[in-house]
Amino acid sequence: MDEVTVKIIERPELNNPVMVEGLPGIGLVGKLAADHLLDELKGKKFAELYSVFLPPQVVIQEDGTVKLVNNEFYYVRRNGTDIVILTGDFQGITPDSQYKISESTLDVAQQFNVKTIYTLGGLGTGNIVKKPKVYGAATSKEIIKKLKEYGVIFKGGGGIFGASGLLLGLGQLRGIECACLMGETHGQIIDAKAAEALLEVLTKILGIEIDMKKLEEKAKMTEREMNEISKMITSQREALEREQRISDDIPSYIR
Amino acid sequence: MDEVTVKIIERPELNNPVMVEGLPGIGLVGKLAADHLLDELKGKKFAELYSVFLPPQVVIQEDGTVKLVNNEFYYVRRNGTDIVILTGDFQGITPDSQYKISESTLDVAQQFNVKTIYTLGGLGTGNIVKKPKVYGAATSKEIIKKLKEYGVIFKGGGGIFGASGLLLGLGQLRGIECACLMGETHGQIIDAKAAEALLEVLTKILGIEIDMKKLEEKAKMTEREMNEISKMITSQREALEREQRISDDIPSYIR
Amino acid sequence: MDEVTVKIIERPELNNPVMVEGLPGIGLVGKLAADHLLDELKGKKFAELYSVFLPPQVVIQEDGTVKLVNNEFYYVRRNGTDIVILTGDFQGITPDSQYKISESTLDVAQQFNVKTIYTLGGLGTGNIVKKPKVYGAATSKEIIKKLKEYGVIFKGGGGIFGASGLLLGLGQLRGIECACLMGETHGQIIDAKAAEALLEVLTKILGIEIDMKKLEEKAKMTEREMNEISKMITSQREALEREQRISDDIPSYIR
Amino acid sequence: MDEVTVKIIERPELNNPVMVEGLPGIGLVGKLAADHLLDELKGKKFAELYSVFLPPQVVIQEDGTVKLVNNEFYYVRRNGTDIVILTGDFQGITPDSQYKISESTLDVAQQFNVKTIYTLGGLGTGNIVKKPKVYGAATSKEIIKKLKEYGVIFKGGGGIFGASGLLLGLGQLRGIECACLMGETHGQIIDAKAAEALLEVLTKILGIEIDMKKLEEKAKMTEREMNEISKMITSQREALEREQRISDDIPSYIR
Repeated sequence: MDEVTVKIIERPELNNPVMVEGLPGIGLVGKLAADHLLDELKGKKFAELYSVFLPPQVVIQEDGTVKLVNNEFYYVRRNGTDIVILTGDFQGITPDSQYKISESTLDVAQQFNVKTIYTLGGLGTGNIVKKPKVYGAATSKEIIKKLKEYGVIFKGGGGIFGASGLLLGLGQLRGIECACLMGETHGQIIDAKAAEALLEVLTKILGIEIDMKKLEEKAKMTEREMNEISKMITSQREALEREQRISDDIPSYIR
Repeated sequence: MDEVTVKIIERPELNNPVMVEGLPGIGLVGKLAADHLLDELKGKKFAELYSVFLPPQVVIQEDGTVKLVNNEFYYVRRNGTDIVILTGDFQGITPDSQYKISESTLDVAQQFNVKTIYTLGGLGTGNIVKKPKVYGAATSKEIIKKLKEYGVIFKGGGGIFGASGLLLGLGQLRGIECACLMGETHGQIIDAKAAEALLEVLTKILGIEIDMKKLEEKAKMTEREMNEISKMITSQREALEREQRISDDIPSYIR
Repeated sequence: MDEVTVKIIERPELNNPVMVEGLPGIGLVGKLAADHLLDELKGKKFAELYSVFLPPQVVIQEDGTVKLVNNEFYYVRRNGTDIVILTGDFQGITPDSQYKISESTLDVAQQFNVKTIYTLGGLGTGNIVKKPKVYGAATSKEIIKKLKEYGVIFKGGGGIFGASGLLLGLGQLRGIECACLMGETHGQIIDAKAAEALLEVLTKILGIEIDMKKLEEKAKMTEREMNEISKMITSQREALEREQRISDDIPSYIR
Repeated sequence: MDEVTVKIIERPELNNPVMVEGLPGIGLVGKLAADHLLDELKGKKFAELYSVFLPPQVVIQEDGTVKLVNNEFYYVRRNGTDIVILTGDFQGITPDSQYKISESTLDVAQQFNVKTIYTLGGLGTGNIVKKPKVYGAATSKEIIKKLKEYGVIFKGGGGIFGASGLLLGLGQLRGIECACLMGETHGQIIDAKAAEALLEVLTKILGIEIDMKKLEEKAKMTEREMNEISKMITSQREALEREQRISDDIPSYIR
């Protein structure tokens, strides 16, 4: 396995595809929005991204079979503009792996002719609001102008960390039109409301409609599943460190 | 030395070999079981795996000679189905090294014609039970069905961390049939009982019989040896950091 | 993207160029001095250095567009001796990346015919002084002799960490004449005064004059901007770790 | 610069050379012994080892010139058996770099025809003793037998961490005869007495005599110099992290 390996499952001919990215981040806002979009639009998986920089573990599925952790690409056929959705349970573990995984993601995007990318995330404010706003940042003034028409708020300052930021930064260097949409959120809680606010704007941009009813419920299930995996993994990891005491010592040596 | 180096000592022609992996993890359950199986079946070493991602150290043996830390492959001749046993005192130190070492392990397995792999581990529950159960996860529904007949319990949810999980995840991508057997264990203590429960199921699956008498005693010796190595290594490592104060500072800079 | 990528924007024919480096460090002294020099001399950007070892993030600019974090090379035309200025908001994250980025920086310097490099930094004393002294270290006795004539103080002992040190150490191996100028500073505060002291010496060495009026004000703006980016990035990073709990656990496993 | 770069300064034809390694470790015992041996025998430097895995910094020397941190190889002409001495202020920062640097060290050793290597270190006991014992570990029973005749004590158990261990482990795989000599020491203090005990045994093995008078004094100077470098580097490093707050945050993200 290379550092990052992309497994292409199907090679659909996509029509003017727009890519939507939603990986874990603040309030899980981006991931919840992308996962819900995927479920409602019944996307079809066409590629999987594996990496030695994702956590070294498998997830046990309902039927007892395992799945190596990965990021997944789905496509949805629409009139005029198809949609590619990128989801996953993890981002790269180290800073340099964030770059490498984002580069491979852009390679897939370009291979399937994606010209525009929307990355989804949360903007933590420490406040709980009734009607979360949607903030943006983008690779060009043209896309900013367009997004302002959909009510996206642009204010300079600050930065964007991880995949949602790097896809913009690296996409910009490749000449891909990218924007990051950030739902206003508290920051410490999993926030289905902010994901809904994001989707309201995003669906208008994409010219589609989706049902939001199951979003809240899905947020709870996501939290439950992640907790379950986390509990089991944590105890294994800690044990590995404890039993294998010497090895446990060494890593502390690299601090 | 490459990042991972496999030194082949002998090239036995193996007959339908099944591989059993037991590296350090929860309660040392997997390692104790594999080490005991190896001793009872009097396996013969045929390959050694070295890696720059194993701790940078040697172990001092009884006679004063040293041994560079490694993982070791043994084989056992059986009627019909030979057995390959993989043991070692360490797993890879970094997440990406876990992937690289597991890939090399699968390379060895395929080179010697292994078609099925059982990885052994513990499932930490926080409870001490009289009769530990054996849980499983696997790469296909077929192997799950077969293992259920031996009393292995499959329930979805959670995940498997480290070599025992990655061999399944990466093996699945290569089309190798793999299952992880996990002995129910407290999680904080070295658990010979859980290892015995594992071996009772595993030996039935393999169609062999072994004596369990020395397992308890071996668990104590393993703990003693690991403590001894750990104590000596820890003081050296700490001293290296302290004396070499500047270098000690730098690693904290990468935090 | 390679580990370090240099994007050449323009290929000016430079006349005996001297390079001045000012990246973040003690009291931001070096960065403030280099940034101010750049503004006053109205340098023109000719190259950008990107690296997977810089933080995985973009900065959001005033107009809402993003910029991938990088280091930047500017040139200034002078009678007789042109000046190259290297600035940036970050140094490499890991020790080995410090080496790799410094090597690429020297490659650019040599490509554009740079024969002398001045790196700028602070020397932390824990004291606040009215008239900060300027200390030095260099690659040869000849340059030390010359710099002493400008009032630079040389006293043996100690070391220089990061880009300001490595450019000297690696430049020395390549036969490039390099000196590090360090402004005396408290160490815990952003220090425009020490930057001014540095610039007073450096401009004499370079035979130029610049206005210092806006330096103080610029120091405040720099601090404000860095705080703003920091606040937004920190909350995103922490959220990523929290939501993605499993992944959060793994990195702690590599400690 | 490659990950590890060896710069050969001179190519002496060595006569049956024995290599002695002394890098920082417990009580600085090995480093003090090797440095003293080097000074007394007036070794001549013939090679320098640089690495991106050594700390990213230069040391400022008495005259104000800088030196990039490195490991250094010296040779000493003796009747019958020449001696190669390896010294330095640092070991590799990460576990894998320990392997890579040790491999390069063995490459140099073999290139100059070294057939036997003695690595020097301390064995921390937590006690202060009047007459420190010398313990050993080695790559073969033959060398153990020989060393016992010089009073070196061999008792199984424990391990050796870092360069002093890896040179044995990796040397063993290459068929080089290696032994580690460990001076009994408290572990928390710089211990010239243990270094003297080591040298008393080592000089007998090598069939040479050296004066021990300056050893104590040199130990104090070594401690003073290391403290001075450490103090200056620490403040720079901390400042770099503080000023460059965002970057400071990121590394904590990889924990």
